Amino acid sequence: MSDIKPWLEKSLLALNTTNTMDVAEGFTRLSFSPEEKASHAQFLEISRDLGLQTHQDKAGNQWAIWEVDQAVPTVAVGSHLDTVTSGGGYDGVAGLLSGLAAVKELKDKQFLPKKNIAIICFVSEESARFGVSTIGSKALAGILDKEETGLVADKDGITIKKAVEEFGVEWEGIDEAELPAESLDCFLELHIEQGTQIEENKADIGIVKGIACPVRLKVTVKGMANHTGTTPMHNRKDSFVAIAPLVNFVSDRAKQISEVNKDPLVATVSTFELKPNVMNVIPGEVELGIDIRSVDDSSKRQFAVEIKEYCRRVVKEQKVEIIVSTLVDNDSILLDTGMQKKLADVCDDLGLKKHFMNSGAGHDVMNISAKWPSGLIFIPCRAGISHHPDEFASIEDMAKGVQVISGFLQRETAN
Amino acid sequence: MSDIKPWLEKSLLALNTTNTMDVAEGFTRLSFSPEEKASHAQFLEISRDLGLQTHQDKAGNQWAIWEVDQAVPTVAVGSHLDTVTSGGGYDGVAGLLSGLAAVKELKDKQFLPKKNIAIICFVSEESARFGVSTIGSKALAGILDKEETGLVADKDGITIKKAVEEFGVEWEGIDEAELPAESLDCFLELHIEQGTQIEENKADIGIVKGIACPVRLKVTVKGMANHTGTTPMHNRKDSFVAIAPLVNFVSDRAKQISEVNKDPLVATVSTFELKPNVMNVIPGEVELGIDIRSVDDSSKRQFAVEIKEYCRRVVKEQKVEIIVSTLVDNDSILLDTGMQKKLADVCDDLGLKKHFMNSGAGHDVMNISAKWPSGLIFIPCRAGISHHPDEFASIEDMAKGVQVISGFLQRETAN
Repeated sequence: MSDIKPWLEKSLLALNTTNTMDVAEGFTRLSFSPEEKASHAQFLEISRDLGLQTHQDKAGNQWAIWEVDQAVPTVAVGSHLDTVTSGGGYDGVAGLLSGLAAVKELKDKQFLPKKNIAIICFVSEESARFGVSTIGSKALAGILDKEETGLVADKDGITIKKAVEEFGVEWEGIDEAELPAESLDCFLELHIEQGTQIEENKADIGIVKGIACPVRLKVTVKGMANHTGTTPMHNRKDSFVAIAPLVNFVSDRAKQISEVNKDPLVATVSTFELKPNVMNVIPGEVELGIDIRSVDDSSKRQFAVEIKEYCRRVVKEQKVEIIVSTLVDNDSILLDTGMQKKLADVCDDLGLKKHFMNSGAGHDVMNISAKWPSGLIFIPCRAGISHHPDEFASIEDMAKGVQVISGFLQRETAN
Repeated sequence: MSDIKPWLEKSLLALNTTNTMDVAEGFTRLSFSPEEKASHAQFLEISRDLGLQTHQDKAGNQWAIWEVDQAVPTVAVGSHLDTVTSGGGYDGVAGLLSGLAAVKELKDKQFLPKKNIAIICFVSEESARFGVSTIGSKALAGILDKEETGLVADKDGITIKKAVEEFGVEWEGIDEAELPAESLDCFLELHIEQGTQIEENKADIGIVKGIACPVRLKVTVKGMANHTGTTPMHNRKDSFVAIAPLVNFVSDRAKQISEVNKDPLVATVSTFELKPNVMNVIPGEVELGIDIRSVDDSSKRQFAVEIKEYCRRVVKEQKVEIIVSTLVDNDSILLDTGMQKKLADVCDDLGLKKHFMNSGAGHDVMNISAKWPSGLIFIPCRAGISHHPDEFASIEDMAKGVQVISGFLQRETAN
């Protein structure tokens, strides 16, 4: 059997629309941008070269299908090609690349599936541009809130509706991308781990049991803007001074909780805006965004309560107003145990060491799992770094992922 | 003698290009904006109504002159009309309004000056748009660094050079606005206090001895961006978590120093930028701007050293890099004692209670004082609030300022 690695290396560059992965500023393909579109075009070209039939659905997802018979069910593999700002070239890409490579391997060895195999490139998985994630897979699973989502705007005031239409998709028809339950048999996503558990457990492949969905809070602190030069220290209502200790409270408490609880909890003050943000004016208002995650839903919700209590104490002790609002609060997702078992069996057969784990990040599979038996496997990425130009996964690790996908597809479509 | 208050009320609205001072969002007339230009137009109209000759100089400053004889010296009064974003309608405006009202009073009582009297409306005093302040008065005093200043850009990437030219002033000729030393006899600015010392001392007028020029630092902290959901708490380099305690260190230490030292010190973390500032990415980089002021230059410089030492400790204890750079470090300015004495005498003659004090804020007079004997008087503003929509100075307090300016002009130009 031919070595898949040169093909993976070449196609990795193509999907990233680059001629080198060594790009200091990383890759930026924001949701519904021309850069995401250019990467989709590469996906379609590679798919056609493999002899797959391609089409774009009503949400802008790209499909590459190895069609055996329209009357039989379809086994699907998928991920995404959009990135955060200055992200890496593996988050999302690795999943599609491995899926296509698995098809190539099966075709090369003249395997004849009894079911259709689809590789789905979901549009706009990352929340970096709009604060809304996994738009394409939500549409496919029929859980996209069209009305509310359409109005959400990016930093330049461009709404999702407008961005989608500029991308070449009719907003009004986006919910027609919903797929009937009988269209798919099951779904598998491969993703880079974005953590270091596989490496720490000296394993090859992570098999994901659950996905920790976030609670997200917005904390708005209102003090009093005033001249920095003329307002004595004792006579200020500086909103930044009042709330800065919360940043360390969030970090320190998350550490404590993780040391005590069975399931770890991570929490981050990840967004911050200061008003008016000029040198000679005391910060009159600040707004913080806090991201809290654990597969233990009660633990993450209890932490949100602790943050609200902390803010109440700040209001009492300082002369500021604080409003805490909950932006997101979703139950964590437990993936299909049957799929976990099948994936574990494939790993065992291949002699690959598996590690059962949870995911701290959301992925397209979250939405698909609401309707179809779904699995998620991880391959290692260097030092766990992701959403950063230094993100890296080796071709060797990707090739192991390809083996697992191809083994899985072979079993699932053999009869 | 007629009551000046109705004229002050009417002209206050005109200079603010409004029909009410009760504007929830305050006034926004950024440097070299169409809004600043519209306010300048009102200044020119009021000046012409008073029979003054007007012209715009090569820097875009507006001049209104009561010309007696081109051969005799000129006594000047001046301030500015631009504002910060959502600022008040008195910062700057009060100075020009009182100057024009003083001229009106002198004309109404048919006073005949023996020197020319000029009211100078300096262009672009505030640093809110470009981070560069007092551009018009710097040009007039011949201390504008044309080369460096021209390249400075606002948040939208518009350079000062471009903004000046859109304002209708040729950038290349801006240094020709420099005035020969013999053109002016002396200079007086009236400004709202932007603090509460006058009120606390139960005085009517503040006579400023010195202006506390700032030391401004930029602190850049580089940690590591990574996924908020997948990066364990113990494995992070969160730049925000590393530096947040500095916000409170700056505030707490400034308080301590002010309690011990003769001259108070104020210090503020007033600007802040977080990168990449998205919900699911750990803050990889933050940049803080710190504004430190005291008329005691050694005290403010010592504090800057303390902040640098604090940052070195953070670098040692946390896994982040920090670069501290000094953006501004100017000596504080001591104003002409002869002018202080004259202004005190005028207050005494008028039966107004004076209070000698220092200014924590910079004003156009800083630049003018480098070349000509200059004075600065303050009138109270409510609760010391400034650079905020709630900024307010009463017509009664402005009328007292008018009396001082008119008394001063009368003495200075009588012979």
